[in-house]
Amino acid sequence: MAEPEAFLAEPGDTREELMGATYRALCAHGYADLTVDRIAAEFSKSKSLIYHHYDGKDDLLLDFLEFSLKHFEAGLPFEEAATDPDDHLRRVLDHVLATSLPEERREFAAAMVELRAQAAHDDRYRDAFATHDRFFRDRFAAIIEAGQADGVYASDVDPEAVATTLVTLVNGSMNRHVTGDGEHAAAVRETIDDYLDDVLVAET
Amino acid sequence: MAEPEAFLAEPGDTREELMGATYRALCAHGYADLTVDRIAAEFSKSKSLIYHHYDGKDDLLLDFLEFSLKHFEAGLPFEEAATDPDDHLRRVLDHVLATSLPEERREFAAAMVELRAQAAHDDRYRDAFATHDRFFRDRFAAIIEAGQADGVYASDVDPEAVATTLVTLVNGSMNRHVTGDGEHAAAVRETIDDYLDDVLVAET
Repeated sequence: MAEPEAFLAEPGDTREELMGATYRALCAHGYADLTVDRIAAEFSKSKSLIYHHYDGKDDLLLDFLEFSLKHFEAGLPFEEAATDPDDHLRRVLDHVLATSLPEERREFAAAMVELRAQAAHDDRYRDAFATHDRFFRDRFAAIIEAGQADGVYASDVDPEAVATTLVTLVNGSMNRHVTGDGEHAAAVRETIDDYLDDVLVAET
Repeated sequence: MAEPEAFLAEPGDTREELMGATYRALCAHGYADLTVDRIAAEFSKSKSLIYHHYDGKDDLLLDFLEFSLKHFEAGLPFEEAATDPDDHLRRVLDHVLATSLPEERREFAAAMVELRAQAAHDDRYRDAFATHDRFFRDRFAAIIEAGQADGVYASDVDPEAVATTLVTLVNGSMNRHVTGDGEHAAAVRETIDDYLDDVLVAET
């Protein structure tokens, strides 16, 4: 399964190579100083090829965003076979609420935080991130529903509400790793585990 | 008490007027397209006066950020006299996890989300937001500690961990209001209330 650590290290075709060049330019310069020239400088093929496929920087960045979110989603351990929904949920949380981020994952998170901020003024970015949030929420909710069906989780909890809260925590945690300090993550996980143990897990 | 709704509507001096001009330019153009010329266009005094006080856009925006975070912090209902810590905590949450944001507060939140994203590549922004997060965490923790001292809240919960989780949720919620959809907020509050009722409130 693809991991953000190896994001586009081995591009399979021209589009993936251009996505890799966009990623490297975004990490190096940040969104505000990103230009097609700077992306082209990371790209082994010609700048005119970029303009052959894209109208310009905005068009390219939106394609990069959708590509990156799909890549990120594919790397999440949602689809792993799991006999125990509670164990599955905690393994997903281990992945998305890491207490420390290796440099490669921090760079990817920084790129996503910067692109996400563009949604403040651009509905196309907002739509892409709203879709991503729903993807995340639906998969969390499916695990919680499986736990309720198994009798592991309490039946009076709304899976969508819990899933929405987890998505909001993952968003806030990624944002704080990139824009604040990373020390929050262990405390967040401790509180979630208390919630899972004392509210979500059904009394036996 | 100052409210974001009335953010800088009645500036008291030249600095506040310039802060208001910066805010309006940031809301209108977004961070990436912000220039000193565009800030000056919102300012009743001369552009040279801006350069008299600031080295340039970066210097001005950092002062704006610190001014805005202090204004936001002063508007939070942390200091209100409260006899019941649990009631106090839920009133603060009513304020910072609003289920819908009036346009003025959404604009302010959007400006903060955009400035916060700059921390991905600028340690000065990162330091300002890390300080803001600690302000928030310390005040949440103080309410929870007061609840424990009163015997309202369970003594085996770590106030700093819960406070850190609440700060992370507030961050994620503000980010989602601005960059995704606002529908998450009621679900987040429902889950927090379940946590408060079933974990934080001491069994009697």
